[in-house]
Amino acid sequence: MSSIKIEHKRLQRFTYDILCAAGVDPKEATIIASAITWIDLIGRYAQGVYRLPAYLKRLRHDLITSPCDPEFMQKYETVYLLNGNDGFGHYLGHIAMSKAIDIADQRGIGLVSVSHSNHFGAGAYYVDLAAQSNKIGFAFSNSVPHVAPFGGISVVLGTNPFAFGAPMKNRKSVLVDFSTSAISGSMIMKAAEEGKTILEDIVIDEEGNSIVDPKAATHGVVLPFGGAKGFCLGLMVEILSGVITGAAISHEIASLYKNFERSSNIGHFFMAIDISAFMPIEDYYERMDQLVTWIKDVKPRKNVDEILIPGETRWLHYENQLSQGIELDQKTIESLSILAQEMDIQTPW
Amino acid sequence: MSSIKIEHKRLQRFTYDILCAAGVDPKEATIIASAITWIDLIGRYAQGVYRLPAYLKRLRHDLITSPCDPEFMQKYETVYLLNGNDGFGHYLGHIAMSKAIDIADQRGIGLVSVSHSNHFGAGAYYVDLAAQSNKIGFAFSNSVPHVAPFGGISVVLGTNPFAFGAPMKNRKSVLVDFSTSAISGSMIMKAAEEGKTILEDIVIDEEGNSIVDPKAATHGVVLPFGGAKGFCLGLMVEILSGVITGAAISHEIASLYKNFERSSNIGHFFMAIDISAFMPIEDYYERMDQLVTWIKDVKPRKNVDEILIPGETRWLHYENQLSQGIELDQKTIESLSILAQEMDIQTPW
Repeated sequence: MSSIKIEHKRLQRFTYDILCAAGVDPKEATIIASAITWIDLIGRYAQGVYRLPAYLKRLRHDLITSPCDPEFMQKYETVYLLNGNDGFGHYLGHIAMSKAIDIADQRGIGLVSVSHSNHFGAGAYYVDLAAQSNKIGFAFSNSVPHVAPFGGISVVLGTNPFAFGAPMKNRKSVLVDFSTSAISGSMIMKAAEEGKTILEDIVIDEEGNSIVDPKAATHGVVLPFGGAKGFCLGLMVEILSGVITGAAISHEIASLYKNFERSSNIGHFFMAIDISAFMPIEDYYERMDQLVTWIKDVKPRKNVDEILIPGETRWLHYENQLSQGIELDQKTIESLSILAQEMDIQTPW
Repeated sequence: MSSIKIEHKRLQRFTYDILCAAGVDPKEATIIASAITWIDLIGRYAQGVYRLPAYLKRLRHDLITSPCDPEFMQKYETVYLLNGNDGFGHYLGHIAMSKAIDIADQRGIGLVSVSHSNHFGAGAYYVDLAAQSNKIGFAFSNSVPHVAPFGGISVVLGTNPFAFGAPMKNRKSVLVDFSTSAISGSMIMKAAEEGKTILEDIVIDEEGNSIVDPKAATHGVVLPFGGAKGFCLGLMVEILSGVITGAAISHEIASLYKNFERSSNIGHFFMAIDISAFMPIEDYYERMDQLVTWIKDVKPRKNVDEILIPGETRWLHYENQLSQGIELDQKTIESLSILAQEMDIQTPW
């Protein structure tokens, strides 16, 4: 499939224009456009501008609200709850993590939970906000059920992403960001679009048999990654971002793509921990450099080029695409072109 | 292999007597014996009294200290560092998590990191302390390298356990407690003792070939669980419990069993979050019950009896063994009998 490279700032401006034309509050649109295009910059295309049409469809159905006038409720000096009033997940995530970072600056640790939110893109964006401020960052979100519990054949949890970030002296943070399922919903969609087969024991039907056809897999039941352990993590994410935040949990969550009856009411959990509480930041950098060196020095297995630190591939994408433009595939270009035409906005391609 | 059942309180008293006879401070011994036998109660035998001879050997070599006179350093109102002075991991873990719970009671969240510690048994013990106080609990620990990074063929991280706990109304907390490796060191030892084969792609040699012979596997390189995601989690545990705590990291850590040159200097990370910061505890219980009901209602796959909530098997062991005695295998009985004889202490069998 052919692709087009678009200069980062032009894509960000285009995203902003589209959002504003759709009626999104300009202040919110600035943050959302920045977050979405950062996600494309690091190469997480399935969570980037590709999702714009879906977000705007929910906006048109009044299931996403803007301006959302979110309300922070202080519960303790270090713990806040944010009622997102059905606002954009990226906007709510950004202000929630920014708040957690501010609290951590003052008090060592900051925890902000969010309810009544929507799909927040990629957790890497939020934990990197923390890492760039020399904080350890955590970002979890629940999502519409696609995943079976370990040993089961029907869905009960979302792909519930788990994200963790830690600063590095070179600003290329350690970025852990993964779905707690054996495959993410976006990877299935991608495989379906590209006509690629899915491996055995990743997606099953309601009889428990593997589905390898990616088109059929979009209606299948996804297994947790790593067996029981992945299920444990997915459940943890559901408890932290769903149960304790007051957001919807499990079957209560409305699908971004399929449910236009009610708002998603997704929940998130953000936490920032100040590293300087533990040691001078220079000492931390030195210790991280030592650890990373030991990891990179490990001899790779056959057919593996080098050992990668979590986030390393992301930063490679970031640098390449910052200088050479963000690579969007034909399908994304086409769907954004249709949006732009409807709204009478000029595309950057 | 035959086994013997020993009444819980008698095993706990025996453990206490052994510890005291070995010179452990009685106040510390009370806590250590209680933690170790709780770990056996929930059926985590490989982390229970089975390890006593190994702990005491390090004590005799002055690599574990008692009394350890640990020092809490307050960094923020909610963040403390504990220098463990090479004390017992169970004692340090217990007082650290207890402190985190106290802080969370006052301030919503409590974080206590520990350096200069030792093997702390099973993370489930600490997160359950939190859960029984209606807190969400986290407990992480680094450990001596046995695990390759994703794609690598030599060790750099420990099996770095990850533990998470959340309360339930029936007091049978959700207990997540797993090694971030494809197999734990204790499972390899167990397999070696029982002569069981290890599956492919769990342990490799320095050429990258699978080792299925469990005896050979004790000298092999363990892979992370769930591929890259498990490695990400293991690294996160290393950063949180090792890098930021000031403890040893990676190759700096001394093996419990093999290194008598220096103290282990293991690090831990404990955190407690007060649920009542988010909602009345009764509302939380109701939401958890709903989630658990949805999970339990999922139809099991072929050859699976029922869907299990993390911790469920542990609580089954707990109840059975509390009433019928803790089941110790012949090897554990023998090694503890030798210890008891050396110390002139009567065994409870």
